[in-house]
Amino acid sequence: MAQLIADRRDVDFVLHEQMKVGDLARHEKFAEFTKKTVDMVVSEARKLAVKEILPTQQESDRVGCTLEKDGTVRVPESFHRVNELYKDGEWLAMIDDPEWGGQGMPKTLALAAEEYFYGANPAFMLYHGLSHGAANLVNTLGTEEQKKYYLEKLYSGKWSGTMLLTEPEAGSDVGALQSVATRNEDGTYNISGTKIFISGGEQDMVENIVHPVLARIEGAPEGTPGISLFLVPKYRVNEDGTPGEFNDVVCTGIEEKMGLHGNSTCTLTLGGRGNCIGTLLGQENKGMRAMFLMMNEARQLVGLQGFGVATASYMYALNYARERIQGKHLKSGKDGPSVPIIQHPDVRRQLLTMKAYVDGMRSLIYYGGLTHDLEGLAQSDAEKEKYADRAAILTPIIKGYVTDRALEVTSHGVQVYGGYGYTQEYPVEQLMRDCRIFQIYEGTNGIQAMDLLGRKLGMKKGQPFMDYLGEMQKTVEAARQITALENLTPRVDKAVNRLGEVAAALGKAAASENILNAFAFAHPFLDVTGDVTMAWMHLWRSVIAAEKLEKLAGGPDMEKFAEKAAKNKDAAFYLGQMKTADFFVTNLLPATMGKLEAIAETNGSAVEIPDAGFGG
Amino acid sequence: MAQLIADRRDVDFVLHEQMKVGDLARHEKFAEFTKKTVDMVVSEARKLAVKEILPTQQESDRVGCTLEKDGTVRVPESFHRVNELYKDGEWLAMIDDPEWGGQGMPKTLALAAEEYFYGANPAFMLYHGLSHGAANLVNTLGTEEQKKYYLEKLYSGKWSGTMLLTEPEAGSDVGALQSVATRNEDGTYNISGTKIFISGGEQDMVENIVHPVLARIEGAPEGTPGISLFLVPKYRVNEDGTPGEFNDVVCTGIEEKMGLHGNSTCTLTLGGRGNCIGTLLGQENKGMRAMFLMMNEARQLVGLQGFGVATASYMYALNYARERIQGKHLKSGKDGPSVPIIQHPDVRRQLLTMKAYVDGMRSLIYYGGLTHDLEGLAQSDAEKEKYADRAAILTPIIKGYVTDRALEVTSHGVQVYGGYGYTQEYPVEQLMRDCRIFQIYEGTNGIQAMDLLGRKLGMKKGQPFMDYLGEMQKTVEAARQITALENLTPRVDKAVNRLGEVAAALGKAAASENILNAFAFAHPFLDVTGDVTMAWMHLWRSVIAAEKLEKLAGGPDMEKFAEKAAKNKDAAFYLGQMKTADFFVTNLLPATMGKLEAIAETNGSAVEIPDAGFGG
Repeated sequence: MAQLIADRRDVDFVLHEQMKVGDLARHEKFAEFTKKTVDMVVSEARKLAVKEILPTQQESDRVGCTLEKDGTVRVPESFHRVNELYKDGEWLAMIDDPEWGGQGMPKTLALAAEEYFYGANPAFMLYHGLSHGAANLVNTLGTEEQKKYYLEKLYSGKWSGTMLLTEPEAGSDVGALQSVATRNEDGTYNISGTKIFISGGEQDMVENIVHPVLARIEGAPEGTPGISLFLVPKYRVNEDGTPGEFNDVVCTGIEEKMGLHGNSTCTLTLGGRGNCIGTLLGQENKGMRAMFLMMNEARQLVGLQGFGVATASYMYALNYARERIQGKHLKSGKDGPSVPIIQHPDVRRQLLTMKAYVDGMRSLIYYGGLTHDLEGLAQSDAEKEKYADRAAILTPIIKGYVTDRALEVTSHGVQVYGGYGYTQEYPVEQLMRDCRIFQIYEGTNGIQAMDLLGRKLGMKKGQPFMDYLGEMQKTVEAARQITALENLTPRVDKAVNRLGEVAAALGKAAASENILNAFAFAHPFLDVTGDVTMAWMHLWRSVIAAEKLEKLAGGPDMEKFAEKAAKNKDAAFYLGQMKTADFFVTNLLPATMGKLEAIAETNGSAVEIPDAGFGG
Repeated sequence: MAQLIADRRDVDFVLHEQMKVGDLARHEKFAEFTKKTVDMVVSEARKLAVKEILPTQQESDRVGCTLEKDGTVRVPESFHRVNELYKDGEWLAMIDDPEWGGQGMPKTLALAAEEYFYGANPAFMLYHGLSHGAANLVNTLGTEEQKKYYLEKLYSGKWSGTMLLTEPEAGSDVGALQSVATRNEDGTYNISGTKIFISGGEQDMVENIVHPVLARIEGAPEGTPGISLFLVPKYRVNEDGTPGEFNDVVCTGIEEKMGLHGNSTCTLTLGGRGNCIGTLLGQENKGMRAMFLMMNEARQLVGLQGFGVATASYMYALNYARERIQGKHLKSGKDGPSVPIIQHPDVRRQLLTMKAYVDGMRSLIYYGGLTHDLEGLAQSDAEKEKYADRAAILTPIIKGYVTDRALEVTSHGVQVYGGYGYTQEYPVEQLMRDCRIFQIYEGTNGIQAMDLLGRKLGMKKGQPFMDYLGEMQKTVEAARQITALENLTPRVDKAVNRLGEVAAALGKAAASENILNAFAFAHPFLDVTGDVTMAWMHLWRSVIAAEKLEKLAGGPDMEKFAEKAAKNKDAAFYLGQMKTADFFVTNLLPATMGKLEAIAETNGSAVEIPDAGFGG
């Protein structure tokens, strides 16, 4: 039967053959997670995703959320049952501390499960993703009391969590926010303000909602240095941990959106009746620092969301292209039989473009997970720092680049279906609409690009970025030994080197008088960094695939590979890897090389054009 | 006040300064259309678009069309009034023969009017676009009787027209269609079949609907050589021209779509009760040829639709970027004032990307109009052929490339708005959804790419394509004389030459055993042809702008231009032209150069990958 959401063979390939997730079980922390357990977890996740979550996708979009007159928000009916299954399976806190109900799983593995979940219905999953983020804040910054009251409730999914950051006049510029906290005698704070775009801000699947809220304590400094973080529950918590009195957090509106309808996007008024009480989470005026602590996880999660939707779109398009009979084969002429559209070169080009990005993104995202796991296992400060720095570099790429390309993939998905793709009879148009938000929330991709150029590239004199390219070079060195990759390897090598040169030059420009021109290339720089990362991932995959094929085919040459692939499923998979790499590097990477030259030139037209010259 | 839909200054620039539409008035056919008249027409169109059509856009999307139990389709309520205004203004038949109620306008001018109309609401306008197409078929192929009964009704908008082509198993492969026509003794035909995806197939703004229908006469050859075209009205036409008996054309369903909700997408059952009668339009078995006759107009119209939506999105994003205050200027630091987001380099990059495509597409589309007009005015067969060939080359570029880039532009439009862009509070997300169909209908962009590579590139031994590049070279020659363009000109020159080389090589490959590989590059080839066309259009614009600026600034150097632009609105416009060209050629064209190299290599991975290697 055709696979849905994700290609299991490729999931397994990245987990075991590329990231070698089973090796983590050598460490005591992950001793349980042997290959067998890993495979079982993925199988269970896939089952839940395909059988239970996926069927909620259409209602999620067509019915969406409803704001009732009393301020409660009804989620799509089908969410309730699936939410119970999700809680019962203890999927929310896969990677977290067993002390608070977590499963203690490697993140690399959890991502494979989440790929299926988010691919099945991102609107449903986002509630849980936010709960997890809120729980992490409590876990990292909370007092023992805060942990006691909130943590298990959040990790179990009994209560949900959110993040109250954006205000009407404070979107990308968080420092401009105006919500106010006033200290009470008992050490709590009275909170008042209006927050917008709060995903899952109000919903009816849980008995309480915990809102981490950014606000300014009266008298605090202006801008980001005066922002503090508070924990504000929808219902105050009784001594025994049960929800008590209503805490004056009122949903006053939900957004009508392009997609992701099943996730409520709320406007919340806090303290409208002067009766909203919160407790400080972490230290006064350190709210922004707290946000930054959580940023890698939150942003990489958005990358996963985009990726999940993209891989689902690819699977649909691939299945459709294999089944849809339309047109003659180009070589058979007018009298030949009609063929499945996968036989048309232009459809193959589209599918292979989708596959190249989807496969590359899967490797990148799991690599982000492995980096997280290795940071947690690090035996020395230096090692820990190395992985933390790697994560810092990866975050804007995983958030920004992946969500940009995910939209492209979902758009190809629509195109492969032709006119049907534009209708709601098939799921691909919804995937594209759902996908469009990921480029925006959790820091627009413009912000991600500025993060990469302005913060990450230059940090520690550029060493972490150069180390990142160094990892790529290691793969290039390994690839040099493989005859079947002799066309590919030098091209990737060249791209990595050129990226290094361009990065150095752009970083210099960004720190000079030429800063405006440099930042006009922040997004192109993110784009090429992502592309070269994809090329690396494909070369890495190809090194593994070529080695496996050599064994299967009994020799290193491509003709033998092709012969073997015609009759052996595993060989076809590996040859598919090599052809996908070939496609990415030979067909798509040349455009990247051109973009690198444009960045190197750092032309100033976008800065120099007079404002009036934009027209209008 | 901020402009909506289109930048009037740029519309005027392309009409008068670039295409010199006023020169057409030297010909008797267009004698009325002096500059003054042209400007008046554009002003009237703009007024109707902004004041009347634009206010229907939201209802068009939110309410959409409703299929009633009796098979009638209700369009959004607001359409009715605007439809009357549109008819009263005689906008439908702007370019057509005054004998049948047309205005006899140059197409170049009509496109400017339609840019405003389609930008205001493509769903509303599509009804009229289809009516015009149907009328053209009648005008070109109809008998005197058919003309008498249908033509004025269609051109006046009293009746509407459609095009019944697609069937469930015959989408891109038209030849597979199964609708049947049986000849009656009186020379009419009994029609039966089911057609899908019929835009405006049923609606309640008109008293009759005229369906040109592709069907196969019983016993006709298989495939496209056996297809004939019929005229099938919803209500048969009485002797006196009034609508008579119902003709058994029943709407059995309308599609739920991603966008364009205000335009009904119908499934029509013809002759379900054996009572559907049509008359042959043109000759037996020449239906596909008839389609090809209309193809340039129909496809170029889709390009205009994409462009209209893109220019509207740009205007919204530009206005928003000028008004939205958020974040500090990069050079002012944290204590500086918050600024309009147009001051952020990354927002400028996005706006300039939008502008570069929008401006370039406007030039391209009007150039398509001028080509049409010059074909109509041609004094010799050779001249006529030259322009007809040019139109043949332009069609896949205008349909395919423009709609691809239009989607990108509308996506940038959403991004500039940030989170607000994803909500229905602002119009940009709807524009993106509406835009997505244009890459699909009237021949998917994959089909357009195959048309360019397989039909147009090689036609007449490649002469028309080479002549097209020759036109570009003329602009390059003119630009060589201009000091201020010394950076730009050689780059465009190089791109045009490389396109010529790559086109020749790819065309050769497409005619060889290597055909499958070649066609895997059909779409990339369309893409680069479009990009190089954009570069040409920008260079052409810059030649004009530089000349004007020299006069305004009293000298040829860029510093003087900038000084003048700071205080003179016209100079700012021209400098904006030059900076946009600079941006396109220096920042975006390098990626195109890379793509050209990939095409030149014509790597076979997309063809060679085993089907099983796609995974799933």
